[in-house]
Amino acid sequence: MAGLQVCSVLVTGANRGIGLGLVRHFLEMLNPPGWVFAACRDPKGQRAQELQNLASKHPNLVIIPLEVSDPSSIKAAAARVGEHLGDSGLNLLINNAGIVKLNSLDTETLEDMTQVYTTNTVGPLLLGQAFLPLLKKAAQGSQGSVLSCSKAAIINMSSHGGSITSSFGWDQLQVISYRCSKAALNMLTKCQSLGYRQHGVLCVALHPGWVQTDMGASAGHTPPVTVDASVGGMLKVLSSLSEKDTGTFLDWEGKVVPW
Amino acid sequence: MAGLQVCSVLVTGANRGIGLGLVRHFLEMLNPPGWVFAACRDPKGQRAQELQNLASKHPNLVIIPLEVSDPSSIKAAAARVGEHLGDSGLNLLINNAGIVKLNSLDTETLEDMTQVYTTNTVGPLLLGQAFLPLLKKAAQGSQGSVLSCSKAAIINMSSHGGSITSSFGWDQLQVISYRCSKAALNMLTKCQSLGYRQHGVLCVALHPGWVQTDMGASAGHTPPVTVDASVGGMLKVLSSLSEKDTGTFLDWEGKVVPW
Ligand SMILES: NC(=O)c1ccc[n+]([C@@H]2O[C@H](COP(=O)([O-])OP(=O)(O)OC[C@H]3O[C@@H](n4cnc5c(N)ncnc54)[C@H](OP(=O)(O)O)[C@@H]3O)[C@@H](O)[C@H]2O)c1
Ligand SMILES: NC(=O)c1ccc[n+]([C@@H]2O[C@H](COP(=O)([O-])OP(=O)(O)OC[C@H]3O[C@@H](n4cnc5c(N)ncnc54)[C@H](OP(=O)(O)O)[C@@H]3O)[C@@H](O)[C@H]2O)c1
Repeated sequence: MAGLQVCSVLVTGANRGIGLGLVRHFLEMLNPPGWVFAACRDPKGQRAQELQNLASKHPNLVIIPLEVSDPSSIKAAAARVGEHLGDSGLNLLINNAGIVKLNSLDTETLEDMTQVYTTNTVGPLLLGQAFLPLLKKAAQGSQGSVLSCSKAAIINMSSHGGSITSSFGWDQLQVISYRCSKAALNMLTKCQSLGYRQHGVLCVALHPGWVQTDMGASAGHTPPVTVDASVGGMLKVLSSLSEKDTGTFLDWEGKVVPW
Repeated sequence: MAGLQVCSVLVTGANRGIGLGLVRHFLEMLNPPGWVFAACRDPKGQRAQELQNLASKHPNLVIIPLEVSDPSSIKAAAARVGEHLGDSGLNLLINNAGIVKLNSLDTETLEDMTQVYTTNTVGPLLLGQAFLPLLKKAAQGSQGSVLSCSKAAIINMSSHGGSITSSFGWDQLQVISYRCSKAALNMLTKCQSLGYRQHGVLCVALHPGWVQTDMGASAGHTPPVTVDASVGGMLKVLSSLSEKDTGTFLDWEGKVVPW
């Protein structure tokens, strides 16, 4: 991971699952970021207990309140992060927060379609908008013109379920609202990569693997990949990203996932 | 078009643009469908004037009230169509109604993202659910086991803008909410094709070309394709669809569009 020199990173949905795993790995790096912003819905509540424990040991960890389906919460989070960073920018925005609803094609509803889309797709769009000034600042302040995660990047946590091409294994599960939201998130990633390239911001969609978290186990199975393995793999992938990778869809082992 | 033997068809957004063009072409066929259901928001209002004129000449044309973003309106429309059809089913559901909002990556909002998704993606999902019993009935009542539009089919009007792979020409336009909604509609089409195959229902996503309608001209350009050419092309494509085409994304000339 010699290549990943990140001064600052923000992870959404950081209080459990993959988000918490990402925070842990960043804090345990040999050269940890100066700022690790862990965003979650209720920083003072029971659900953020593990983040609070980590914060008491790591002064570079800042817990930020964030509800990703609420535009004003997103703006407030960006302002708060900006105050902490002062004159520096944000290198890495990891849009990790997400939800799934176990509906079939027959039982899917307007309400669930809307809630899942708002969280999984609109949230990342609005977070990109709100944090763009800080990402630009990081890009301008960094050396070299080549895109990289050490410079400035948006990482959207997508899913193999968002691949329209490879439906293998998803046929039974269905989860229409989830699959549609992640396909749309992949499109958003492509649009962000086209629109933000001029600002020096790299954008990719990542599939974390099928991971042992609340979500991964929600259909009653035991997923094959541990949080540690998934996060370790993804951070290795992030460290290797450059110009040619912006706008792509990769998995935790670096393999291209078809749209 | 010898192959397209459709006893009944429903077109959403039928009062203008491509939807109205589809209705006209169906009515003018040598063997027109026994039932052409033209769904629109305000059947009695000024905006449905052309449909009203057509209905006065064509007894097989029935104008149905339908707001595709309202689940109860969708259910009411399905009930009404069912009453007209009596013992027969519906062969063809064409999810054509759609909207675009001219926002860039910077100006896109939660409200527009939600409204466009509800109309362009959730509407087609709920219409598929509500009309499934009628589509099944048509499939069961038709001879042969091979999927086709003469048997039972859902056609989702997608867009080249929904292709994540081919962003060519869409970079400047952006229209994030639209592109995300159509990528999600493509995913829905794939899921519907997997889920409804067992019921004998074929499902495809169609790109109508860049067509001379209010929407086609909304960015201030003059589109190259007339409504007549687009609709003529699409009906030819529909007449040729079989088993192997379900779950695909085709344009008005029959070419496969990459996801
Ligand atoms: N696990 C897998 O196998 C898998 C596979 C493919 C993709 N993914 C993706 O990876 C990401 C993380 O998944 P995970 O497995 O770690 O899920 P998880 O264990 O269910 O955790 C989800 C996280 O997102 C947060 N969150 C949900 N809605 C939120 C909202 N509206 N505002 C703020 N935070 C919100 C949750 O916070 P609360 O504690 O407050 O609910 C939680 O921290 C998701 O985007 C998921 O789609 C996971
Ligand atoms: N024109 C193109 O170049 C082009 C290219 C690619 C894809 N498409 C797709 O083709 C389809 C038709 O487009 P068009 O060019 O004919 O568009 P259009 O001229 O703007 O007509 C849109 C139609 O959809 C109806 N509609 C919109 N929202 C509705 C709602 N909530 N409930 C019910 N009806 C609603 C409109 O009814 P009102 O009159 O009541 O508003 C109108 O009948 C759309 O799905 C579009 O995305 C068009």
